[in-house]
Amino acid sequence: MIKKPEALCKKLGLRFNNPQLFTMALTHRSASSSNNERLEFLGDSILGFVIAQKLYDIFPEASEGVLSRLRASLVNQGSLAELARKHQLGDYLLLGSGELKSGGFRRESILSDALEAIMGALYKDQGIEACQQWIERLFSEKLKSLSLDNWQKDPKTQLQELMQSKKLDLPEYTLITMSGLAHEQMFKVKCAIPLIEEACVGTGVSRKRAEQSAAELMLELLNKDSQ
Amino acid sequence: MIKKPEALCKKLGLRFNNPQLFTMALTHRSASSSNNERLEFLGDSILGFVIAQKLYDIFPEASEGVLSRLRASLVNQGSLAELARKHQLGDYLLLGSGELKSGGFRRESILSDALEAIMGALYKDQGIEACQQWIERLFSEKLKSLSLDNWQKDPKTQLQELMQSKKLDLPEYTLITMSGLAHEQMFKVKCAIPLIEEACVGTGVSRKRAEQSAAELMLELLNKDSQ
Repeated sequence: MIKKPEALCKKLGLRFNNPQLFTMALTHRSASSSNNERLEFLGDSILGFVIAQKLYDIFPEASEGVLSRLRASLVNQGSLAELARKHQLGDYLLLGSGELKSGGFRRESILSDALEAIMGALYKDQGIEACQQWIERLFSEKLKSLSLDNWQKDPKTQLQELMQSKKLDLPEYTLITMSGLAHEQMFKVKCAIPLIEEACVGTGVSRKRAEQSAAELMLELLNKDSQ
Repeated sequence: MIKKPEALCKKLGLRFNNPQLFTMALTHRSASSSNNERLEFLGDSILGFVIAQKLYDIFPEASEGVLSRLRASLVNQGSLAELARKHQLGDYLLLGSGELKSGGFRRESILSDALEAIMGALYKDQGIEACQQWIERLFSEKLKSLSLDNWQKDPKTQLQELMQSKKLDLPEYTLITMSGLAHEQMFKVKCAIPLIEEACVGTGVSRKRAEQSAAELMLELLNKDSQ
């Protein structure tokens, strides 16, 4: 049996002026044409902004690359579904009969989309500040447990440590090309690891920079694959 | 000669409480370690949110897919660089000597990043509402000229018209697999076009849906390539 939206609303510490918005956020497209897809589009963009500004403030020393990686570690389907499950969001979803039968209430994408849709609904109901506060509360534990230790390390070190932790051979860097005159040389370096077939090519004004850039791309690739 | 930031600030209709933030937004990483990369990270997320909420309001009938495509058409390196050029932003950039020599002030990525960094700086200086208003003003013409006509068309129609406009053969759709029992069948369809080697595979509960999904993926691919 599907539980009443009001109970979830209360559990999330929310109170909607327009409860229909909240119900819409819980409505999967399999259940109705008036569903949560548009609200999810909105919520996704709000979440990106709220976490970005929070990270910007918490880590004044972190580079843009580190901030991006930190955000990707917080905002992804897996972590959103985890937060959704923590509040038993699946029990409140409005799903079509097909999705109900196939266990859609447990599916990560459906849970994560609904949570983002709630953010969108809250924004429409109460504006950006209320929404911001709620998202920051929702993510407070995750934000507290973040530490720069793992992220401040340069990409080559991170990638090397990752390979070591998996007892794999270390990454290999190969210079592909070097171009340009002395004062504006560009280096292209390929990074290959035993874990995947794909290689990543980084560029930079020095060989070292190009290697770091290739390692960074490889970390992003591995990060995407694991999501 | 690099022009003074104050002049650009005025031209953009802005007034900073902390002008150093504005100067930082114009500082490319080639010029200083105190550069615009962090502000760009912040600005990018704000821009995504501001345009998302605006499109959500302007087009109450548009689906999530249409909203996403509309946003991608507004927020991309090319369109941001165009806005930056409109305000001669390149004349005010602080670039390292290498970038200066190689014409970095004309490079789309540098222009687009600096514009996003200004958004981040404005947010830090004056909060989200002021920033939102300015971004909406900046994009007002582009927003006004948007029409759903092109976006409401289903993906297959859009792709077909695109091919016709380029005088190319029409897309080809091939059924790859059909699986599941009668009431929960899944179709996989491949879409191929003469323009690129890659093919896109869409899935859906009907052959028609799978074709639309494949066409949509193809449009996204072409869109990415053209950016």
